[in-house]
Amino acid sequence: MSEAQPQPDQFDPENVAGLDPEIIEAVVAALDEADTEKAKTLAISLHWSDLADLLETLNHDRRENLVEAIAAEFPANVLTELDESVRERVIEQLGLSHVANVVSDLEADDVIEIVEELDYAEREEVLDALSDDDRSMVEEGLSYPEDSAGRLMQRSVVDMPSHWSVGQAIDFLREADDLPRDFYDIFLVDPNQRPLGAIPLSRILATRRHVALNALMIADLKLIPVDMDQEEVAYLFRQRDLISAPVIDDTRRLVGVITVDDIVDVIHEEHEEDIMRLGGVGEEDDLFAAVLDTARSRFIWLLVHLAAAILGAAVINHFSGTIEQMVAMAVLMPIVAAMGGTASVQTLTVAVRAIAMRELTPANALRTIGKEIVVGMVNGLLFAVIIGGVAWGWFGNPALGGVIALAIVINFLVAGLAGSALPVYLQRFGFDPAVASSALLTSITDVLGFYVFLALGTWLLL
Amino acid sequence: MSEAQPQPDQFDPENVAGLDPEIIEAVVAALDEADTEKAKTLAISLHWSDLADLLETLNHDRRENLVEAIAAEFPANVLTELDESVRERVIEQLGLSHVANVVSDLEADDVIEIVEELDYAEREEVLDALSDDDRSMVEEGLSYPEDSAGRLMQRSVVDMPSHWSVGQAIDFLREADDLPRDFYDIFLVDPNQRPLGAIPLSRILATRRHVALNALMIADLKLIPVDMDQEEVAYLFRQRDLISAPVIDDTRRLVGVITVDDIVDVIHEEHEEDIMRLGGVGEEDDLFAAVLDTARSRFIWLLVHLAAAILGAAVINHFSGTIEQMVAMAVLMPIVAAMGGTASVQTLTVAVRAIAMRELTPANALRTIGKEIVVGMVNGLLFAVIIGGVAWGWFGNPALGGVIALAIVINFLVAGLAGSALPVYLQRFGFDPAVASSALLTSITDVLGFYVFLALGTWLLL
Repeated sequence: MSEAQPQPDQFDPENVAGLDPEIIEAVVAALDEADTEKAKTLAISLHWSDLADLLETLNHDRRENLVEAIAAEFPANVLTELDESVRERVIEQLGLSHVANVVSDLEADDVIEIVEELDYAEREEVLDALSDDDRSMVEEGLSYPEDSAGRLMQRSVVDMPSHWSVGQAIDFLREADDLPRDFYDIFLVDPNQRPLGAIPLSRILATRRHVALNALMIADLKLIPVDMDQEEVAYLFRQRDLISAPVIDDTRRLVGVITVDDIVDVIHEEHEEDIMRLGGVGEEDDLFAAVLDTARSRFIWLLVHLAAAILGAAVINHFSGTIEQMVAMAVLMPIVAAMGGTASVQTLTVAVRAIAMRELTPANALRTIGKEIVVGMVNGLLFAVIIGGVAWGWFGNPALGGVIALAIVINFLVAGLAGSALPVYLQRFGFDPAVASSALLTSITDVLGFYVFLALGTWLLL
Repeated sequence: MSEAQPQPDQFDPENVAGLDPEIIEAVVAALDEADTEKAKTLAISLHWSDLADLLETLNHDRRENLVEAIAAEFPANVLTELDESVRERVIEQLGLSHVANVVSDLEADDVIEIVEELDYAEREEVLDALSDDDRSMVEEGLSYPEDSAGRLMQRSVVDMPSHWSVGQAIDFLREADDLPRDFYDIFLVDPNQRPLGAIPLSRILATRRHVALNALMIADLKLIPVDMDQEEVAYLFRQRDLISAPVIDDTRRLVGVITVDDIVDVIHEEHEEDIMRLGGVGEEDDLFAAVLDTARSRFIWLLVHLAAAILGAAVINHFSGTIEQMVAMAVLMPIVAAMGGTASVQTLTVAVRAIAMRELTPANALRTIGKEIVVGMVNGLLFAVIIGGVAWGWFGNPALGGVIALAIVINFLVAGLAGSALPVYLQRFGFDPAVASSALLTSITDVLGFYVFLALGTWLLL
């Protein structure tokens, strides 16, 4: 083994984990000592995805100092890896003309990812710095709807006529000087540029030169229309364990290819959407957003909740006479509300997840809702007994125990019904099922829990 | 274009979407008419991932009938695609000896996925049907910890000495008869089988025969230790946009390779874990679980909540004298609790998501908690003004407005603190941050909201 090769015995922990905390500390120390040169050397030596993580982790002042230090050699890929709100600030600091220079090294799909967040004038300034070819590729990409296959795809595709042999294919690839940076399949096309099939590169490498390409071809291809939503695309990739897939326009011509590394990002984005909506926060609300932006984005949602909470208070107020006569009602009513809320969030979570995974479909929706109602009834009965017993023992009043038991059963039934039916019907009418956020459902079970318990109490106990 | 080739003009919608609802309907109709032959023909013609979706969608009786119909030709890959609880029932119906036959067609990592869920005796029965080679590969895979890289990896790797040329590599691949079904990189190894670098297949295909492999090699490799947790592995793949990565044992020898299609499944699994825990349900709780299993798995969590709710009731009971004197306190107290709950769930959601994405690290944890407290204060002050005004107007009592305003500010501060600090410290001490589920946090803000509001009211209003 020659000396120039890497030394496998020097086991480098950075080779295993992501960004090493010791490196963060070293950069922070260098920045705090105003040792810009050292901070720069450390930062530039990192892989671009780790450098992006480093920039995200630093506080505002240190990040500005580091960006200033590395601006002249700013690696273009870092921009694509940065979280949106951090990227915005870095772009502002670097200045648009410098950003335009930096991104001219990137492939069209990466440039699109960066410029699609800019406003029109900013976007134009960046695009002006690109070569005419690159510019027209980026502009064509931007002409497709946001979150569509057209935005995700790489426009340079390796395609060949289906009558070629393996040898011709290899000779062509060795001659070609405009191959994409990475590709995993070769697509065979007819004379109208319509895809006929795909060949994984491993099959070409394992086959002798004289064999015809169409003998190696996988013809059962999933073709992705250029305007397909990225969520659908991600679903296809997962279903078929795809590494890359051909994108076609409405005349069925091959116009691009989507690779799985972009799909991994889409999957994370879609997950983020689900989890954020379930939690009642906007997608733009992330760790790196400024305090006031964060507070503002949460305000609206809190306001919706306030309306629900005031409705709940109005219900209680309606029964204030009952509470005055029997303060135990006020003591116990939050138990009814909280248990119903928990049961409904459980159901909602399972339903939203199942819809995202395409497990909950129109074909089994009614069955699922039915099942959730039965589950609600089973646990409702169990907790009715437990809570009824607690209330009886606590206040020495068996009728009060009976009333709360009945209210619990009803609220659990509603929780099962609402928690499953709400996301199913939201989905059916074209809304995101996750906007039936846990907090919204909790409001329903709160209001209903108060009403049922207090109304039953007024009727049966006074 | 010869006639034997696919006809691109016959645009097949099934080629675009996943499982076609019309096919589901047709299969259901065939099963209901007891036309087993037709149901079988329709089902067998599906891609295995679509067939798995079909089996998941059917109700219990229809699924049993369909499995019976296709048992003799049951496609092995369907088993790997099925949801766990459905798979269990299908395996039971097929019988272990038949399953053993079916899985003998699969690669070792897929067999592992299926048998790792079986108990010891069942597992042995399946393994007995495998060839000795396959069996030992599966058993070695099973010897690695659950959810580790060793369980995920394929054991057959394409590796070569680094002194070979492109021509030698291609000749070797054409001769080899035990290549993996799919591979995307060739790994160069030293004489001790330690990885030196990787070469994407596209680079080999685009390079002339005489070029040395090590001139094409990517040496900056992430090596994955065989016992690395799958969550870490998924993080590396996303960070580096990897398609495949080498797995090494503790002597740094190359023992396997992980490909991105398995990572896509891991990402979905990890996300499921997060969303389920945030929603207060077990991971085993899915759409296809039986009613009693579902009810049982949710029961424990509901019991935890009941304890919290009873604690809240005890707090209210402590102040029952206050409520008797001023029933408006009972009317308004759920507003304080609900608003604090919503604010804490918002914070928790952002924090759990950021931890999963490795954006929230020890380096910025304190800053994040600080930010969330400030956000809580900003919205707390805004809602204090709004809710204080509502209470004043409603009950004509400015002091009551002041008391609820103060309680709101305090509960929002606590919501920001608890919602961010709880997941951060759970993570630091080795727990899953998502177990600080939204419902658990809501309990904290409920109990505290009641206490602060009623205590302030008792002190200031009576």
